[in-house]
Amino acid sequence: MSDASESASRPLGITMGDPCGIGPEIVARSLLDGLAPGSVVVGDPQVMRRALRQLVAAWPVAEVERPVDASDCPPRCVPVWAPPGLPTGLADLPMGRVDARAGAAAAACIEAGARAALDGALCALVTAPVHKEALSAAGVPYPGHTEMLQALAAAPGGQPPPVRMMLANPQLRTVLVTIHVSLREAIERVTFDAVLETVRIAHRAAVGWGDAAPRIAVAGLNPHAGEGGLFGDEELRIIGPAIAAARSEGIDARGPYAPDTVFMRARHAPPGHPGEFDVVVAMTHDHGLIPVKYLGVEDGVNVTLGLPFVRTSPDHGTAFDIAGRGVADARSLQAAIAMARPCAASAHRGN
Amino acid sequence: MSDASESASRPLGITMGDPCGIGPEIVARSLLDGLAPGSVVVGDPQVMRRALRQLVAAWPVAEVERPVDASDCPPRCVPVWAPPGLPTGLADLPMGRVDARAGAAAAACIEAGARAALDGALCALVTAPVHKEALSAAGVPYPGHTEMLQALAAAPGGQPPPVRMMLANPQLRTVLVTIHVSLREAIERVTFDAVLETVRIAHRAAVGWGDAAPRIAVAGLNPHAGEGGLFGDEELRIIGPAIAAARSEGIDARGPYAPDTVFMRARHAPPGHPGEFDVVVAMTHDHGLIPVKYLGVEDGVNVTLGLPFVRTSPDHGTAFDIAGRGVADARSLQAAIAMARPCAASAHRGN
Repeated sequence: MSDASESASRPLGITMGDPCGIGPEIVARSLLDGLAPGSVVVGDPQVMRRALRQLVAAWPVAEVERPVDASDCPPRCVPVWAPPGLPTGLADLPMGRVDARAGAAAAACIEAGARAALDGALCALVTAPVHKEALSAAGVPYPGHTEMLQALAAAPGGQPPPVRMMLANPQLRTVLVTIHVSLREAIERVTFDAVLETVRIAHRAAVGWGDAAPRIAVAGLNPHAGEGGLFGDEELRIIGPAIAAARSEGIDARGPYAPDTVFMRARHAPPGHPGEFDVVVAMTHDHGLIPVKYLGVEDGVNVTLGLPFVRTSPDHGTAFDIAGRGVADARSLQAAIAMARPCAASAHRGN
Repeated sequence: MSDASESASRPLGITMGDPCGIGPEIVARSLLDGLAPGSVVVGDPQVMRRALRQLVAAWPVAEVERPVDASDCPPRCVPVWAPPGLPTGLADLPMGRVDARAGAAAAACIEAGARAALDGALCALVTAPVHKEALSAAGVPYPGHTEMLQALAAAPGGQPPPVRMMLANPQLRTVLVTIHVSLREAIERVTFDAVLETVRIAHRAAVGWGDAAPRIAVAGLNPHAGEGGLFGDEELRIIGPAIAAARSEGIDARGPYAPDTVFMRARHAPPGHPGEFDVVVAMTHDHGLIPVKYLGVEDGVNVTLGLPFVRTSPDHGTAFDIAGRGVADARSLQAAIAMARPCAASAHRGN
């Protein structure tokens, strides 16, 4: 069997997310809409049955023993692979509430999905939203997906790989040097090594998707990218040298550019406005996310770069306020699914 | 004569900007296009004649002794009020170069325009771009318009008024707590007083334009607005209390909101996406300007709030690389002119 057909036969794993949030219903909605072909849900069959009822959908759930068995499922059913050891009674938990059992179940699905992706049993992993407090109540020592997946990707006894968060929509992709820390702390974490590593990760990822020579813009930290040192010197001391180092490795990194115009320049809205760059590396969470979210979060996808497998997720949370009503917008998850599959194929070809 | 007719008879002043940049030609273009009715150019007649030649336009320049005399000019001519003491030979300076005489002339026009606006001889002031290095070469002790206008607006022997920069386009208005300082320094300058004063200035300005009860969103400084103190405490210590103080003064200030979604929420793109807020107060230069510029700078207007007169300007610089070729885009200046006139009328009605 050739590599390409192997890749085609491996399903895409979609974790159900927190059972009390909108995760199960947007996963079910994506399958019902035919927008997740060749996928398997990593989750609890009863929770997925409840989600289908919430959507007033008559499709059955097909429990599979291994991810690969999903390809044997008939059409118009939802293949679900339940990791061993899920808590019982998950489908009886009230919707829209923080619950330790829900957090434990969500974490178990992420762990099983990640291990299956690492083993090659899944071609890629798409994760539905989890709730930080529910994970915490379950004693999960990670605040979210990114940190948990990073830890799971470490070789036994080894260091976890450096990973970075990318937010992407059809117009803009930004990769972040720093994420969930205070702005003060973020400035401290803008180091030569952190910037260079981010540029390298962005470059490798873009090459993996099929961009032969990705144009990587690096945003500055300070107004006007420091205006020659007048408004801060991180561009001169740190960011500029990191860009030069990346260029010496053959990476087409450019900048540092003024943060207030680099995203406008990168915005890809052809034919009138083709983007000047393929990816923008941003120093802070909000420099990068303000422009990606400005036109709406519906088609935004969160991608973890640097893992040994492809992982995407929607750009929103569990939406406890509307969970279980069947009204949640599944577009961001569907965009995450649509992005994962070709990325996985490219990554596979690249192996 | 009533106040309203007085207001109508006073011209709008438009400074020519740096004579070696695109200022004179975009000012001339706006008059030629009929988009600056009732205006007078504060500038050098020879420089404006050169700009008209660059645009291959046959309109004559009409030199006026006082701003008010512009209303006596015939149609299809460019009324120019030359402040006393302008350097000679300005129209012979090469285009696209930093020159101390150009900087001195640009500064003289700003000063004369500001004094005329303060005296009521101009209904409002629109300023074409100046070059920071040219101002500096001329010994002008201000880096740009905002600081210079603030100093000119001080009563003799008194303190300059607190002013703030606003960037506005038809979809979004953001008012900045901090501007041209490093991000490190900006964090230090996010104080209770600075935030409260910014909210007050934004409120007064919006009421002046005719918003009876403007909805003012205040963005946080940190990711997720600090996530309850987990990612920084400025929201809890400073920004939240400043919002509460503003509310106790009857101002409809809300927040602090997560920076990455507040601009999306405020974006006013009816009918599908009416904005939730009328103005967003941003803590840093780039939090505020990234979203305003994301869709393009063509219709962006820079407004100085807090001055005793209305002042607007285009959202770009002197563009030395294309100056004098007659190809500069005048839309941002035209948007600045369009915004100044009704603001001036509202401010006048409010007196």
